[in-house]
Amino acid sequence: MKIVVHKYGGTSVADIARIRAVARRVATAARTERVAVVVSAQAGETDRLIGLARKLMPEPHARDMDLLIATGEQASVALLSLALRCEGLATETFLGFQAGIVTDGNHGRARIEHIDPARVRAALEAGRIAVVAGFQGMSFDGRVTTIGRGGSDTSAVALATALSADRCEIFTDVEGIKSADPRICPDAKLLKCITYEEMMELADTGAKVLHTRCVELAAKHGVPLVVRSSFTEGEGTRVVPEERRLEGTVVTGISLTKGEAKVAIRKVPDRIGVTARIFKPIAKAGIDVDLILQNVSEDGYTDLTFTVPKGDLRRAMTLASLAARDVEAGRVEAAGDIAKVSVVGLGMRSHAGVAHTMFAALAEDGIAIQMIGTSEIKVSIVVGIHQAERAVRVLHEAFGLSFSTGAPVA
Amino acid sequence: MKIVVHKYGGTSVADIARIRAVARRVATAARTERVAVVVSAQAGETDRLIGLARKLMPEPHARDMDLLIATGEQASVALLSLALRCEGLATETFLGFQAGIVTDGNHGRARIEHIDPARVRAALEAGRIAVVAGFQGMSFDGRVTTIGRGGSDTSAVALATALSADRCEIFTDVEGIKSADPRICPDAKLLKCITYEEMMELADTGAKVLHTRCVELAAKHGVPLVVRSSFTEGEGTRVVPEERRLEGTVVTGISLTKGEAKVAIRKVPDRIGVTARIFKPIAKAGIDVDLILQNVSEDGYTDLTFTVPKGDLRRAMTLASLAARDVEAGRVEAAGDIAKVSVVGLGMRSHAGVAHTMFAALAEDGIAIQMIGTSEIKVSIVVGIHQAERAVRVLHEAFGLSFSTGAPVA
Repeated sequence: MKIVVHKYGGTSVADIARIRAVARRVATAARTERVAVVVSAQAGETDRLIGLARKLMPEPHARDMDLLIATGEQASVALLSLALRCEGLATETFLGFQAGIVTDGNHGRARIEHIDPARVRAALEAGRIAVVAGFQGMSFDGRVTTIGRGGSDTSAVALATALSADRCEIFTDVEGIKSADPRICPDAKLLKCITYEEMMELADTGAKVLHTRCVELAAKHGVPLVVRSSFTEGEGTRVVPEERRLEGTVVTGISLTKGEAKVAIRKVPDRIGVTARIFKPIAKAGIDVDLILQNVSEDGYTDLTFTVPKGDLRRAMTLASLAARDVEAGRVEAAGDIAKVSVVGLGMRSHAGVAHTMFAALAEDGIAIQMIGTSEIKVSIVVGIHQAERAVRVLHEAFGLSFSTGAPVA
Repeated sequence: MKIVVHKYGGTSVADIARIRAVARRVATAARTERVAVVVSAQAGETDRLIGLARKLMPEPHARDMDLLIATGEQASVALLSLALRCEGLATETFLGFQAGIVTDGNHGRARIEHIDPARVRAALEAGRIAVVAGFQGMSFDGRVTTIGRGGSDTSAVALATALSADRCEIFTDVEGIKSADPRICPDAKLLKCITYEEMMELADTGAKVLHTRCVELAAKHGVPLVVRSSFTEGEGTRVVPEERRLEGTVVTGISLTKGEAKVAIRKVPDRIGVTARIFKPIAKAGIDVDLILQNVSEDGYTDLTFTVPKGDLRRAMTLASLAARDVEAGRVEAAGDIAKVSVVGLGMRSHAGVAHTMFAALAEDGIAIQMIGTSEIKVSIVVGIHQAERAVRVLHEAFGLSFSTGAPVA
């Protein structure tokens, strides 16, 4: 019998009725496959716990927070196990460490170092459903850790890898991956199939259905992912290695990120090492810099612009101002009213025309481009936040994503 | 430096303000002693979790319940650790299994088999406050268990024993142990000192401040207990071995239990083995029988009466009726409107007059005694529930407990 890992997020187990629905779905799957289920905390529970801790201190100690937050997944595991028993299934429950998930000691953002899935495998082979707490593990020295961004999705993929599972199905509150956010483009279509690489670019630029880290892990180990709804019966989106996709699609989807801000340093002396000196303190402060742009210089000076998460803008400004003084650059400007729109597609590599189509469509619609950045399979632009959603719609249409011509082929 | 174990119950950590108060108290103690703190789930949390599980199934599987309920203590540990850090203390947190608490595999009512306190001791010796989850442990095969009745108090005493602590202080929502329930006898006085044995009888008959199991454990290992309030500064009640108490007191306290019901079997043939046949199915069903009374027989028949927890009355009736038919006894009667009042005191052993004083005082007040039972240091009577509180007041006065004459000497 094949092994499959299911992962259910917080909204999928938000209340007793939904937990029952999850149990029924698992019961159906268990008729033909061995199922390990990775589960998140009930929606709202993690925030409730963080709220409690913040009442004690504004920045609670990470080790205690991990212990506190890990209770959320633990409760979900127990409740889901009970619901599965109601369906007549035998179950075995596993906290992160009981499932053999060993992490490093970085509380709040631990990395999975190793999984020994022997006990989970034994439970599956004995015909039981393995119900595993997502988002948590234990450090080598026996402290409860949480694995930070990507959370339970990453747990599920890591477990699927360790179990050599046939696939990892991520059940969520959307039908799958769409060519754009359907709240912005009502005619965005469900993608049947997408490559790991495309998925990473989309996740990174705001699709938010799957975290980059989890897709990266799946790609590394070649675990097929399926993203599907826990509320409907659709087949969702399969995330697969490149070779399984046929050619033919240039652009797969459009994504939008609103959470960034830009910092511009004017009149930066165009000397070797200056850029490095500017970014050193920012990197050291752990601020995530996304786009970096530097134009060719004029009269020995250039403008340097970069984007950071909005929440880090104040810190980034302070550091950039100090750095600017240090390298004898001009004034530092910032803007939070921006958004990033990205066009993603594996086919882009061999289609130089994408950028042109993109810029022409935006120009025709009167949308001003503030910054441009590209990666192998992505072109990103920064626009004013008020034009962002229109930009997404314009591009979705320009690349024919609403029509079957642009559909990816499964 | 001496080691002391503090235990704080659910009401003591019910909200953030109270958790802060606990942290301040621990901080004060930590100036002169090494402190390990055992903590319960926040008041109401365990019931909330049980409620969730009961929505899924009326009698949830015990293993899953243990996993679910154990989250309550885990959250308290994390929150208290944060609060202690706010007080400038270094802490180390321990779930049951991390504190080395190994139990048998009886979910929901596991017994502590063994404690290896090496990690807790190391934390204390390194100058950290050890914050330990009460009520939980882990079975030999790695399953999370809860230790049932007596819960966190038992954890605390067991840990104090394993650490050879100077004493175990149980912080609760009352000032200490009183000579009677102050809601019934407003002039009941706080006992400065009480023996383990008296405490067990009081706990058993409804004082409910400490569970028998925890007192038994303390007695076995000679760990001095202190019961005191987490809300006031009083010194509470010390629970000590017999030899530390001076003579002089006959009766220490009066207790009241309302949770029982009685079952009477009429005309039981007075033959050897009949009583055993009647109680076998009841014992097998796990029903807790408290008082058992059988009068001398008349014409080869006797009446047999016993008390059971009210919640088990229906089951006990069914089993008693079957057994009565089996042994050819007469009809079975039951009554739930009873209460048990007990007079407890170590001095009673050498004072035969206690029973007489008791019965005379009750008779004078027109209170009808339905059943009488005695143990070495206790006389219990069963009365109608509507006369129960009056009986407590009458006896409290009859034994002079309101006055200093009857006060136990510390």
